[in-house]
Amino acid sequence: MIVMIRPDVSPEKIEHLIKWLRDKKLIVKEFHGQQQCVLGLIGNTKCIDKDMLKSLDIVESVADMPETFKASNRKMHPEDSILRLVSGNGPAIGGGNFALIAGPCSVESRSQLIGIAQEVKAAGANFLRGGAFKPRTSPYDFQGMGSEGIDLLLEARAETGLPIVTELMYLQNLDLFIEKGIDVIQIGARNTQNYDLLKELGRCTKAPILLKRGLAGTIKELLMSAEYIMANGNENVILCERGIRTYEQDYTRNTLDLSAVPVLKSLTHLPVIVDPSHSTGRSDLVPSMTLAAIAAGADGIIVEVHNDPANALCDGAQSLTPEAFAALSAKIDKLREALA
Amino acid sequence: MIVMIRPDVSPEKIEHLIKWLRDKKLIVKEFHGQQQCVLGLIGNTKCIDKDMLKSLDIVESVADMPETFKASNRKMHPEDSILRLVSGNGPAIGGGNFALIAGPCSVESRSQLIGIAQEVKAAGANFLRGGAFKPRTSPYDFQGMGSEGIDLLLEARAETGLPIVTELMYLQNLDLFIEKGIDVIQIGARNTQNYDLLKELGRCTKAPILLKRGLAGTIKELLMSAEYIMANGNENVILCERGIRTYEQDYTRNTLDLSAVPVLKSLTHLPVIVDPSHSTGRSDLVPSMTLAAIAAGADGIIVEVHNDPANALCDGAQSLTPEAFAALSAKIDKLREALA
Amino acid sequence: MIVMIRPDVSPEKIEHLIKWLRDKKLIVKEFHGQQQCVLGLIGNTKCIDKDMLKSLDIVESVADMPETFKASNRKMHPEDSILRLVSGNGPAIGGGNFALIAGPCSVESRSQLIGIAQEVKAAGANFLRGGAFKPRTSPYDFQGMGSEGIDLLLEARAETGLPIVTELMYLQNLDLFIEKGIDVIQIGARNTQNYDLLKELGRCTKAPILLKRGLAGTIKELLMSAEYIMANGNENVILCERGIRTYEQDYTRNTLDLSAVPVLKSLTHLPVIVDPSHSTGRSDLVPSMTLAAIAAGADGIIVEVHNDPANALCDGAQSLTPEAFAALSAKIDKLREALA
Amino acid sequence: MIVMIRPDVSPEKIEHLIKWLRDKKLIVKEFHGQQQCVLGLIGNTKCIDKDMLKSLDIVESVADMPETFKASNRKMHPEDSILRLVSGNGPAIGGGNFALIAGPCSVESRSQLIGIAQEVKAAGANFLRGGAFKPRTSPYDFQGMGSEGIDLLLEARAETGLPIVTELMYLQNLDLFIEKGIDVIQIGARNTQNYDLLKELGRCTKAPILLKRGLAGTIKELLMSAEYIMANGNENVILCERGIRTYEQDYTRNTLDLSAVPVLKSLTHLPVIVDPSHSTGRSDLVPSMTLAAIAAGADGIIVEVHNDPANALCDGAQSLTPEAFAALSAKIDKLREALA
Repeated sequence: MIVMIRPDVSPEKIEHLIKWLRDKKLIVKEFHGQQQCVLGLIGNTKCIDKDMLKSLDIVESVADMPETFKASNRKMHPEDSILRLVSGNGPAIGGGNFALIAGPCSVESRSQLIGIAQEVKAAGANFLRGGAFKPRTSPYDFQGMGSEGIDLLLEARAETGLPIVTELMYLQNLDLFIEKGIDVIQIGARNTQNYDLLKELGRCTKAPILLKRGLAGTIKELLMSAEYIMANGNENVILCERGIRTYEQDYTRNTLDLSAVPVLKSLTHLPVIVDPSHSTGRSDLVPSMTLAAIAAGADGIIVEVHNDPANALCDGAQSLTPEAFAALSAKIDKLREALA
Repeated sequence: MIVMIRPDVSPEKIEHLIKWLRDKKLIVKEFHGQQQCVLGLIGNTKCIDKDMLKSLDIVESVADMPETFKASNRKMHPEDSILRLVSGNGPAIGGGNFALIAGPCSVESRSQLIGIAQEVKAAGANFLRGGAFKPRTSPYDFQGMGSEGIDLLLEARAETGLPIVTELMYLQNLDLFIEKGIDVIQIGARNTQNYDLLKELGRCTKAPILLKRGLAGTIKELLMSAEYIMANGNENVILCERGIRTYEQDYTRNTLDLSAVPVLKSLTHLPVIVDPSHSTGRSDLVPSMTLAAIAAGADGIIVEVHNDPANALCDGAQSLTPEAFAALSAKIDKLREALA
Repeated sequence: MIVMIRPDVSPEKIEHLIKWLRDKKLIVKEFHGQQQCVLGLIGNTKCIDKDMLKSLDIVESVADMPETFKASNRKMHPEDSILRLVSGNGPAIGGGNFALIAGPCSVESRSQLIGIAQEVKAAGANFLRGGAFKPRTSPYDFQGMGSEGIDLLLEARAETGLPIVTELMYLQNLDLFIEKGIDVIQIGARNTQNYDLLKELGRCTKAPILLKRGLAGTIKELLMSAEYIMANGNENVILCERGIRTYEQDYTRNTLDLSAVPVLKSLTHLPVIVDPSHSTGRSDLVPSMTLAAIAAGADGIIVEVHNDPANALCDGAQSLTPEAFAALSAKIDKLREALA
Repeated sequence: MIVMIRPDVSPEKIEHLIKWLRDKKLIVKEFHGQQQCVLGLIGNTKCIDKDMLKSLDIVESVADMPETFKASNRKMHPEDSILRLVSGNGPAIGGGNFALIAGPCSVESRSQLIGIAQEVKAAGANFLRGGAFKPRTSPYDFQGMGSEGIDLLLEARAETGLPIVTELMYLQNLDLFIEKGIDVIQIGARNTQNYDLLKELGRCTKAPILLKRGLAGTIKELLMSAEYIMANGNENVILCERGIRTYEQDYTRNTLDLSAVPVLKSLTHLPVIVDPSHSTGRSDLVPSMTLAAIAAGADGIIVEVHNDPANALCDGAQSLTPEAFAALSAKIDKLREALA
């Protein structure tokens, strides 16, 4: 249920109403916009007399929220959410703050990682990505450097100042990620509906969660997965379109669904970013799909960059060289200016 | 088979080789670029001694062309094709010439059509679209105004100077389309593999054919359908991405596959345009998807504009108002400038 | 609109009502079951006063038919349709009459075709299939023997008595098919929404039309395509599930959607058959998928049989040998008995 | 790598070879068939001199195994695996032992569960299914009775003797499942690629794992997920086809991919069962899809039965009544006899 408060109502009166609603065992989300305050009610709203609520002099209107996604719903929070890192430092995400996240698919060595980190920073990236724990379809494949990879990421952060984005695969590593202060915790496409993991991400941290859409996940399912995190206490969720599984498999690995960007932006206040690397699986398509994603309204891009794509341990075919990334970054700036 | 001719070979020598190859019953496509001439051979190339060909002093190199699409293959014609209308007038399409095709889904009346035509022209459109014969899933639904609609389109052309794009559904109407001088003949998604129709479009006209991708057609199938037209004599084919059928159906009608744009541009020299209206089915998504399509490299856009979307006889939900189209057109200009 | 007539109403009274309805420019379909007569009304049923109709003493009940498919709707015709050949001879199809349609993908030669025809007949087939005109994605591929192939099919019919099922690709061949007396005219997946062709099949013949589901066609679209034929005068349509296009492409060509069989049987009175050869593309899967289709309720099977699959000009990998077909046919008999 | 041992080689000689191979740090799977012994080698087989191995007099042949799935590969284990419960009691699964698994979607109450258990047992079921922990897309929905539901399942087992099949959603519940002696642990479609969970199922138990195919999972991915369990020590995996996500959503929830049954049976020795309830989402389609699955070669069926479908807390629309289940069970018997 959505309660619009009249403009110019005093904070005390609003607080009083919120307290009364919370006493009814409802979760109350407050959104304080420039003009107006909106209250979003989650829970058994049947216990509320809607007509009574409407008749209150501080209330402008009351509306049901038929959508199954609640905390992530833009009706609750009409302006874009702006996410901040736990450290309080570093770039914000969403609401006009563009996230340019770049780095190698896998952390392979100290020199590889720090070299790439310096290059992507110089080219304009404001986050460093890199996989320490890798999800692999086969149990017999390279599974990443593990906690050693995490330490290298922290070194790269110390060296460059770039906050770190890395994937959490296993619940038992969550403590490690929190303790080490991973800035943005990525949840991969295979874990998008691992509700166990999502709940703990809600309970145990306030770090932004970069949540990828499932391999063949619907937009609604992506929002419902965000809801699992948010309902458990962490409202800092970044949604990521990363291509969906379709019949077209001759020329691209997945089909990048860019219409999901404006659809999501209309449904939710959360930031929406795009991964042009995994979706296409082809570095030659990454620049055009990056520009298209930005033109579609994305709040950021997560892109793979490798200093030696031909010899990357993982996903080399989709990685840009640092030079190609720098050229792309310059185009991104020009494009964002034109769209502003 | 692709034969690269050395630079600075005289036209006579090239002609001589071509004649010799044609005597072997091969189809020979000539591409004369700024630097170099390329010959593409289609047919039973096994009858040619490849080593002998390589040894000729006018030949730089010979390569097989494993792709099943031949005439449309960029290897045959390394530069973008630039298509022209049969009339010789009007805008060119491809190779940097942007096609902004706008108009109503269906032609409904003289005043509707001419009103919209004038408005889209004023806003920057260089082609007028409008359906006279409508493909309908149900035999009991409105099937369009038919040849009367064609006449109204011609009136609108006379009035505004905008060349006409309209859909040919039935083979028996091809003569009418040719006789009336329809500028660009559109083939809809249900007819993409109607080979009968495609062959006749190759045999009977040189008018540009706007060929839409099938409802769940692959990129390869789209190229092979273009091949049916080209192999029968008409090389003026415009490819159109219009959304593919996927499991995601809650928020969009189809999934617009924008990665198809750079994929097609790499495979073929033909112009590639995008239909953001039918793919999404939602007018609020049309502006962002239009900009994304252009950022992805599209050579044009075909978009529905209706003066009264709420009362359109067909597909009103996806039509822009003339005002929204004018605003979009201004953004397109800014975007194209930034990308140039 | 569906009008249930009371039991024991005289034929004259029913005729009288039908005449009155037809005078209102409605199409009236009559279904005379063992117990009761049902009238199905198609057209502008708003011109009818439903309450008045209900109040007639010969009318038991009146119900709207919200479905967009009308003539094919089981509500119009509660019992299974039983289709007969134009010749009046040969097996019926539907309503418990099982169609076992077998033969080569393409007609290749007299000896090949007649040899296979005799073998499949001996093994229990009651129809012979064979392609004379082949739909090929590439214009450069073998397109079938054409009318010469048709003549060979007729010879095989004369020799074995098996009625012929063969694909019509081009409208201009329809006269040939009718003149030659092709028993069952097959419409392939690429032509399922070629409305032009469907209309003419309705207007020009009463021969059963074997209508395949589109490559990525919905169940509703298949019914609407049947409707195009039926609304134009030919009610003899056989629906054919032949696999749909999905993301799973590693082990099968298409995904055979067997749940479409009971879904279609519940929605329509038309016979529903299954093509296990094209859907899977693998002869080793044909026997199990044939048995599964029959267990799912199919009214028939169309299966490819070739005497020399390894050297077939087309689709050898999916063809059974005559021996394998004979073994399968024996299993079909056993299975149908168990399910009876 | 696959090593075929000559017939009539003594067990001691085989043991000797196996020891030698294990000393090379290879995993060696032994399959002792009626005629012959097969050794399957997993790991870094490059350390083996293949020619030397071939030259041994006890070795008949050596072949590479290019497939990425190893332990589940039928080449390793040419005969069907036959799985047994940890208790040593109860029915076997696979190799001709048919699993008829029936019961409610969710455990709702003692009387509901025991009533249904008795009815399905009387009708021929040999396993009882029931969900205690429910995966729900929304965090706000009923999540199952939890451990209380587990206790009710154990009571129903005590009462009827039917072994229990129930879903494990969360890793932290694995200990509970093992301690309580859950007979068959089900892994749902959202957890098919939760590798963390799969590894622990390999390490901590020998109970059969009923592994469902992912929502849009490929056949290969399903096998690779089985591989995660098997490579970690538990070879008792049952694969379950449960419908895949496709564009067809009007009449069924998912598209049941029955060709996956013979495909899987050809690739792996593991038992393959089918869930006709979740795939279709419609109880009226369950009987025909059950029979079709069996005709396709399934080793079992898992089907929802509820005494009061209209008031089920979950998935009532797809549940059979006990009467309908009994009728279906009788048909299954007749069908299996005919197919034997």
